[in-house]
Amino acid sequence: MIIIKAGGGKYINWNYIAQDIATLNEQTIIVHGANAAFKEISQKFGLSEKIIQSPSGHTSRYTDNQTMELLTMVYSGLINKKIVSCLQKHGINAVGLSGADGKLWLGKKKDAILAKVGSKTKLITDSLTGKVESVNTKLISILTRGGFTPVITIPAITDSGELINVDNDRALAVMARDLKVRTLVILFEAPGFMEKLDDPSSKVSHIDIEDIDKFLEKSEGRMKKKLLGVTEAINAGVTNIYFGDGRIKNPVSQAMKGKGTTIN
Amino acid sequence: MIIIKAGGGKYINWNYIAQDIATLNEQTIIVHGANAAFKEISQKFGLSEKIIQSPSGHTSRYTDNQTMELLTMVYSGLINKKIVSCLQKHGINAVGLSGADGKLWLGKKKDAILAKVGSKTKLITDSLTGKVESVNTKLISILTRGGFTPVITIPAITDSGELINVDNDRALAVMARDLKVRTLVILFEAPGFMEKLDDPSSKVSHIDIEDIDKFLEKSEGRMKKKLLGVTEAINAGVTNIYFGDGRIKNPVSQAMKGKGTTIN
Repeated sequence: MIIIKAGGGKYINWNYIAQDIATLNEQTIIVHGANAAFKEISQKFGLSEKIIQSPSGHTSRYTDNQTMELLTMVYSGLINKKIVSCLQKHGINAVGLSGADGKLWLGKKKDAILAKVGSKTKLITDSLTGKVESVNTKLISILTRGGFTPVITIPAITDSGELINVDNDRALAVMARDLKVRTLVILFEAPGFMEKLDDPSSKVSHIDIEDIDKFLEKSEGRMKKKLLGVTEAINAGVTNIYFGDGRIKNPVSQAMKGKGTTIN
Repeated sequence: MIIIKAGGGKYINWNYIAQDIATLNEQTIIVHGANAAFKEISQKFGLSEKIIQSPSGHTSRYTDNQTMELLTMVYSGLINKKIVSCLQKHGINAVGLSGADGKLWLGKKKDAILAKVGSKTKLITDSLTGKVESVNTKLISILTRGGFTPVITIPAITDSGELINVDNDRALAVMARDLKVRTLVILFEAPGFMEKLDDPSSKVSHIDIEDIDKFLEKSEGRMKKKLLGVTEAINAGVTNIYFGDGRIKNPVSQAMKGKGTTIN
């Protein structure tokens, strides 16, 4: 069993991904983002993205009620069902789920977040963000044993039934841990891990697990974030991670052949 | 096993529905609408509802691409996950699905629709509407055997993987047929079947299956539509249909006690 995660970038090609998965002899679980669509639809709604910054400089999305509703519409509605439709077109019997369904991604809401607003630090208590802590493996296993391919995205859910926004990469690591999955394929809009942001010629073909800290130090922005996700996955028991380009043909098998960045 | 269908009206009380289902000793499958939310969000988007009228006078929603996207967002995203969250709050392990997931509601797209536009009759070829023809009972049965409660809504899907908008009541009848369900509970914003629209004192407590045609003749508007749905369900093998008020406490058990309209 492998978990394939595809980012929510505009140029991620789901036809190519679906075509490729249809030829794999491997049970897959798919996790997806929807960031580009979310931004576009937020604008149509006149909803501006609210970013909060922790005193230590870490930024995250401020998920008020309205944002949560829009996230739910776009991630678990529009994009999840578009992906299901695309996979079905290629003969993959996909079942789209949010992390809330069957308490698949069970998490805890952050009680309060200290955040910088201008020069002041405020305590934000109504952000519906949280962290996935465990995965309902039973729902996944009855679906996969039944021949279905789960396609999963946010929101997650708390034990008391509240929808929460969570980080997909963290959810991915917890899924790998609880399902004992050793291989992750992570597709995004770049040829692999790049030492210099936006410079494809700085792509690194292989990173030894032992050397991740070294790469973390010298990486920046979204590349750094991806490596942090990798660290979580490795701590969760994953032994092979393939970064690959989600815009090219056969993106999954190309990544697994080492055409992107292999981390093991 | 019973199927509970709740309409998408603004005053349908999901807390009451969930509380009630939690006390039933019966496997339930839930089907829901989302019409009020859809209208509200369409307006925010500046999307006006497109209604087409067949030459015989029958009206239906014209589902262009943009409408389909919005339907998917609101029905299978926002409202489906809100209902899942509400059911989970009451201890029901709900799994939200669209008819597209696992080809649960498999249907055919209408090739073309003759419709009146002003005084002219036009052939509309790009409406993504269709009819559910069969149900993937395997997905339902592995979920229910696993202890989950399926919560289902549009879109449905064609054999070639295209998302389509379908009539919930027709889908309900096909589900009952394929799952061999004999009992339906149908909740809406009225105390039951009313002979005069909007006049609760004209509520009918019991309709004999033999007499449905008689009631069909003298009913109007949405009440007529509900009875037409009942006819389909009966043809599909359903023997007991309970209409009930989705705004009151214990709406399911009240309906099954005959407090709304019992059709059998």
